[in-house]
Amino acid sequence: MTRVVTTIAEVRQIVRAWRAAGQTVGLVPTMGYLHEGHQSLIERSVADNDHTVVSVFVNPTQFGPNEDLESYPRDLEHDRALVEATGADVVFHPTPAEMYYPNRRTTVHVDELGSELCGKSRPIHFDGVCLVVSKLLNIVTPDRAYFGQKDAQQLLIVRRMVRDLSFGVEIVGCPIVREADGLAKSSRNTYLSDEERAAAVVLSRSLAAGRAVLEGGERRASAVRQAVLDVLAAEPLAAPEYVEVVDTDDVNPVETVEGEALVAIAVRIGGTRLIDNFFFTPEV
Amino acid sequence: MTRVVTTIAEVRQIVRAWRAAGQTVGLVPTMGYLHEGHQSLIERSVADNDHTVVSVFVNPTQFGPNEDLESYPRDLEHDRALVEATGADVVFHPTPAEMYYPNRRTTVHVDELGSELCGKSRPIHFDGVCLVVSKLLNIVTPDRAYFGQKDAQQLLIVRRMVRDLSFGVEIVGCPIVREADGLAKSSRNTYLSDEERAAAVVLSRSLAAGRAVLEGGERRASAVRQAVLDVLAAEPLAAPEYVEVVDTDDVNPVETVEGEALVAIAVRIGGTRLIDNFFFTPEV
Repeated sequence: MTRVVTTIAEVRQIVRAWRAAGQTVGLVPTMGYLHEGHQSLIERSVADNDHTVVSVFVNPTQFGPNEDLESYPRDLEHDRALVEATGADVVFHPTPAEMYYPNRRTTVHVDELGSELCGKSRPIHFDGVCLVVSKLLNIVTPDRAYFGQKDAQQLLIVRRMVRDLSFGVEIVGCPIVREADGLAKSSRNTYLSDEERAAAVVLSRSLAAGRAVLEGGERRASAVRQAVLDVLAAEPLAAPEYVEVVDTDDVNPVETVEGEALVAIAVRIGGTRLIDNFFFTPEV
Repeated sequence: MTRVVTTIAEVRQIVRAWRAAGQTVGLVPTMGYLHEGHQSLIERSVADNDHTVVSVFVNPTQFGPNEDLESYPRDLEHDRALVEATGADVVFHPTPAEMYYPNRRTTVHVDELGSELCGKSRPIHFDGVCLVVSKLLNIVTPDRAYFGQKDAQQLLIVRRMVRDLSFGVEIVGCPIVREADGLAKSSRNTYLSDEERAAAVVLSRSLAAGRAVLEGGERRASAVRQAVLDVLAAEPLAAPEYVEVVDTDDVNPVETVEGEALVAIAVRIGGTRLIDNFFFTPEV
């Protein structure tokens, strides 16, 4: 039976008992409204660790003032049932007041990696992510924590933060889970109308075109971006926010793909902002 | 026998074994050149916990470009012997390269609390402290960590950081240890000539004057500051950098002492910068 725990003190107590028994702990941080993407992370954690904690917390500090904090979809009973089906032990579902003191003064900032891609339109987003992930790592003290590759920039930033601050946790990145037509699973897909949902397949199709160009031997980032943009331009409901080819070290745009690269896009479909990406490493 | 450990991996391994045996761990972070002030912290930790780790690391990120990083006194054999005499288990003595990757991008910043007092003349100091303390807490994962009240602003900042980031550690503040004449113990006292050493007693004497004024019922910060400054002015070798009365929440100057206050001073004696302070809570 999966327990829903709402206080930091109770999570610490549960983990302390597991530790005293010499058992390992996995953490899957989520904002809830869980789908098959989250499920794949939880299943991986359950397979890797003796115990798994799934946090379900719509973290206010990672939303900008005009973003969808209030309307972000929530369904705790659905989430609890999904977690229970995977065999994870605990859903940690704190209130914002449990997580944040009113006169908080501490920020955790990863320079460089958060300034491109989503950082351009969401300037406070990754500081909010670093803050809540730091807190969750300190509360749960997991051996491993699981993040989806769909939020690729987040994954790279969390990895860097964990290395820089010497957190004793292994960050495990997990592949993007997609709908049958290729659309990356996202809690925000629920915002899409039927017509928009049909149009949203253009994200994964455009990335496939970019990948094909790279696999054909092209190394100029401009050519890869153009191949992606051409596909996006053919879909009237799609408004690209960015199409970028960046290095996976500092997440800066590259002119030529030499080491591992991340090809990442953000596209508005109607009022909904969706992201997708792939990693590519040229053979040497 | 106290072990000197130089790698992060080895410390983690040692602590993991202690944890598996259900034992508690105390951490005393130091920059080495240990004196009776550090010794009091270590003894307290040894009394409180099953095991104690003393870190000895002259942390480069908390020194400004024109500060005394290179000349800061070091004597590992003396430190190891002192730690051994207290019964602590491990001296953690990493190199700067072991602690810091060259392309570190993460900063931990506590707003407000670090801008007054020592923060005015040492603008990057407390970010460096927060960074290294975060790392040490993540590496050692102690139940309790011990800090001297002599570095009062540091103690308040570390407490706030630990609360804001939900570190699972109790921060224990320990009283200032003084020489027979009242000078607060400090590794930097070794910089003083005989004449300067004699003059340095003026710090604790000036604070005693400030405390006497407060205990006499005075609540105006200006009057407390003046009482301290008057004593400092009588010592020709003393050049005050600041004399401040601040609240202990956000470390901002107060006009009137109403809640708990920190009276803190920094004074140059010749080329050496020394600090001292006391806490005062008015009866209500």
